Amino acid sequence: MGSFACLSFLTDYGLEDGFVAACHGVIAARAPDVRIIDVTHLVPPGDVRRGAVVLAQVVPYLPPAVHLAVVDPGVGTPRRAVVVTTGRGVLVGPDNGLLLDAAGALGGPRAAYRIRGPDPVSRTFHGRDVFAPAAAALARGVEPAALGPPVDPAGLVRLPPPVRRLVADTVEAEVLLVDRFGNVQLAADPALLARLGLTPGARLRLAVGAAAHDLPYRGTFGDVGVGELVAYVDSAGL
Amino acid sequence: MGSFACLSFLTDYGLEDGFVAACHGVIAARAPDVRIIDVTHLVPPGDVRRGAVVLAQVVPYLPPAVHLAVVDPGVGTPRRAVVVTTGRGVLVGPDNGLLLDAAGALGGPRAAYRIRGPDPVSRTFHGRDVFAPAAAALARGVEPAALGPPVDPAGLVRLPPPVRRLVADTVEAEVLLVDRFGNVQLAADPALLARLGLTPGARLRLAVGAAAHDLPYRGTFGDVGVGELVAYVDSAGL
Amino acid sequence: MGSFACLSFLTDYGLEDGFVAACHGVIAARAPDVRIIDVTHLVPPGDVRRGAVVLAQVVPYLPPAVHLAVVDPGVGTPRRAVVVTTGRGVLVGPDNGLLLDAAGALGGPRAAYRIRGPDPVSRTFHGRDVFAPAAAALARGVEPAALGPPVDPAGLVRLPPPVRRLVADTVEAEVLLVDRFGNVQLAADPALLARLGLTPGARLRLAVGAAAHDLPYRGTFGDVGVGELVAYVDSAGL
Repeated sequence: MGSFACLSFLTDYGLEDGFVAACHGVIAARAPDVRIIDVTHLVPPGDVRRGAVVLAQVVPYLPPAVHLAVVDPGVGTPRRAVVVTTGRGVLVGPDNGLLLDAAGALGGPRAAYRIRGPDPVSRTFHGRDVFAPAAAALARGVEPAALGPPVDPAGLVRLPPPVRRLVADTVEAEVLLVDRFGNVQLAADPALLARLGLTPGARLRLAVGAAAHDLPYRGTFGDVGVGELVAYVDSAGL
Repeated sequence: MGSFACLSFLTDYGLEDGFVAACHGVIAARAPDVRIIDVTHLVPPGDVRRGAVVLAQVVPYLPPAVHLAVVDPGVGTPRRAVVVTTGRGVLVGPDNGLLLDAAGALGGPRAAYRIRGPDPVSRTFHGRDVFAPAAAALARGVEPAALGPPVDPAGLVRLPPPVRRLVADTVEAEVLLVDRFGNVQLAADPALLARLGLTPGARLRLAVGAAAHDLPYRGTFGDVGVGELVAYVDSAGL
Repeated sequence: MGSFACLSFLTDYGLEDGFVAACHGVIAARAPDVRIIDVTHLVPPGDVRRGAVVLAQVVPYLPPAVHLAVVDPGVGTPRRAVVVTTGRGVLVGPDNGLLLDAAGALGGPRAAYRIRGPDPVSRTFHGRDVFAPAAAALARGVEPAALGPPVDPAGLVRLPPPVRRLVADTVEAEVLLVDRFGNVQLAADPALLARLGLTPGARLRLAVGAAAHDLPYRGTFGDVGVGELVAYVDSAGL
């Protein structure tokens, strides 16, 4: 696949310990010229869905890269460590669904490989000792097939797709992200709302559990006053 | 202006989502050799004053750079996106006062330009789609004038200056920053205190709302015991 | 000692202010090619022991580097600023015990030097104005002896070693770290447990203050069910 000048890195390791730095060190020692872009290390511990959503929304804006992602509640169980290739970069991480939304955003998985490594249930720090060395090797231009045997991309573990459907005159859509500005990102997109005849300018009734709000569907939050609710299509098209 | 080897980056985006990383990616794709120094991404959401204070106190210690700063509660309104040039670097961000304290710390604004870009009230992610590309272009050596038409620096939006005045025998001074060590930075400087005859060694009466404290004015917090209050001149000269 | 391509950086400065960025700027201006790896900046303010433990567990995984560490509750007192050389890198920071566990992890201190600098009780920001310039100089290949007079490594300030001992049929071991996943790292290692005949497969009684728990000693936390307690040997061998 050739080498990569850029390596992105997402985990749930937090920033208080040295876990992230140890992985940076392993990568810097093996691929001294690669530029590391930290996507985030504040995925809530073990929240694979959240990690997958964040990664998929960022990778289209990164240069062609090795994308290293570790949110791995199954470490210490026999889950697989995998490499997934795409037309625009390669992903490295646990086979638990974390990588596949991002692979889709990069044109879809082309091939996958199981990373050979230490006993998966050893006390190894897999990010540092398995995933980071594999990512650094790929950045240097090592072929994915050199890291382990091919596996069928269709057999990779997938997360259930987020809820996003029409039920009578209602759109049901899962919350994907809540950001620090208070934006609540729903899995619904404008095409789905359009099937109910809802386009910008309409008013919506938004039900969250037992609560419900009437709010306008507008082009941007600048279209309503400070402190008012608004539905709008965000920069991810949701 | 020539190219810049260094690009600083300050926002209120937080570190939990991929917003910062998407901007890093846009910059890395367009200016692969620039070194990005993250100033902070934990400005409280929309707190332009806090962002301006932090930026102004850091830029004197950075190499000549493009300083990209986005704290932008007016995104989605017709506020301008601007470039401000100085004798020691160039600033990029919204025209809401965020950049001008830093411009002052770099010798004062020399010229300003309105960044041409998408409809300012579109649903664009302006940091990623407007400001980061402009900053990357400047780092590569693109002339600021190539990004958009000149505007009068005197017409840029300014924050009200922080309160810092003598009222009878009292110094009134706004709190600029409270850091994680508990240091409370006031806008007052030693020259202002000297006008009341207050120099290190004196005792002060410090009123905060309804509460008041007597405390010594000393050279450093090492001059008092652990847990005791002290007034001192900090590394920003305040 | 030659130059270093890598510089690690650990502090208790937090990420909300510009303290870390100002140091990055000072380093980038003086050693433009060095790669900075941020170990963490979220050491609890003034917690020298925590900083020492994190640093010592990360440095073995970093390339040969200058390790800059500043957790410095004694700033503003006459504590010394020091450089400590080892066989695999060089450490820079306050002489308060922060550096010595890491020096041990790098083969032990070989020599030490007191950094000449401004009056130690001035209002200087020591990280930015003393330690970062010294670290950048070392990265560029300046000899440690050029930074100040040699001091006896045996005379450097040491932290008391963590509690780790056998008392009758009990192992007493201090908690070194609690990470965001809930792992509690004890100073005990498998050799100490083995002296009580405890090897993986045994059950332990773990007393924490007045509370006590019975739990299995196993190879990994994947060996017990979700939500169950387990004792295991972690990736630091503890």
